[in-house]
Amino acid sequence: MKGNVRVIVLRLGHRPDRDKRITTHVALVARAFGADGILISTKDENIENSVKKVVERWGGPFDIKSGISVKKIIKDWKNKGGVIVHLTMYGIPLDEALKRIPRDRNLMIIVGAEKVPRYIYDVADYNVSVGDQPHSEVAALAVFLDRYFEGKELYKKFKGAKVKVIPQERGKKVIRLDKAECGNNDVQ
Amino acid sequence: MKGNVRVIVLRLGHRPDRDKRITTHVALVARAFGADGILISTKDENIENSVKKVVERWGGPFDIKSGISVKKIIKDWKNKGGVIVHLTMYGIPLDEALKRIPRDRNLMIIVGAEKVPRYIYDVADYNVSVGDQPHSEVAALAVFLDRYFEGKELYKKFKGAKVKVIPQERGKKVIRLDKAECGNNDVQ
Repeated sequence: MKGNVRVIVLRLGHRPDRDKRITTHVALVARAFGADGILISTKDENIENSVKKVVERWGGPFDIKSGISVKKIIKDWKNKGGVIVHLTMYGIPLDEALKRIPRDRNLMIIVGAEKVPRYIYDVADYNVSVGDQPHSEVAALAVFLDRYFEGKELYKKFKGAKVKVIPQERGKKVIRLDKAECGNNDVQ
Repeated sequence: MKGNVRVIVLRLGHRPDRDKRITTHVALVARAFGADGILISTKDENIENSVKKVVERWGGPFDIKSGISVKKIIKDWKNKGGVIVHLTMYGIPLDEALKRIPRDRNLMIIVGAEKVPRYIYDVADYNVSVGDQPHSEVAALAVFLDRYFEGKELYKKFKGAKVKVIPQERGKKVIRLDKAECGNNDVQ
């Protein structure tokens, strides 16, 4: 999305049973709003597979990897000059943060589940609040990326997509890019 | 948020077992991003109670009601001159929709679960896509409200809040508004 700048999301504290759907939403938002990939702390092949299926159908590139060493990933990222943003309702306001976050360096965006260790607050270059109210890491990530990419991410072209939505006032139209058109307006 | 204009969210197709956490995120996003209330199609007292607890602690006003007659609610809304937006990846692009949605009429924003009946596409004044990629109704709602309220919703003051976050570069600080300050920077 930003020339050679790479944007990745790091999802912390994922519990496969409890967080399956929320983490899947986080991953799909990362992809749809212009990030290049997602790392998920705990191994979860189900989420990996379901996100890979979306990439296969709707295009990429978008990387997903689960079961990682969080501290090692963060250390490497910082050693290579990458910036780290941690989204938390306790951080500095989004508008202020966006003025300070450099746009010419790779960016890692950390989103936690319920408990985030103190270490993350310390290691982040910016602890950023998307509003100071309790809501959702899915929402925080989407709004952060929408502001960071200035709305351009909604027009991103995905490579290798097999299908494409044709916007409609009413109903649904999806065309196949690898075959003749087979979309229609038939909802359900 | 917008003078006398009322903005409410209608959550369709909620299945208490499966959608508990996603619908809770939808409700908290509705509140945090400036909507006045949420209606949830299926009765779910657990979600009602957990959202009411957030309102009690973090302020309001914000209404929640579950177990409603969707068709009746929609008919009444339209009869009273309210506008209906349905968020769907198959709709018209957000930027285009925002130019057309009137700002001087009450607004109902419909977000569905997996399957949305054709009726909703037909009854909506605007079927709006927040990007044409599969992602999350939580994200779609947040970004829609952020754009609709032009970012001002992140500065909304909530009435009757018992606590308030004081933004920090590192760590957490929460003060009580009903007692002496008892926040600290201690995370975990």
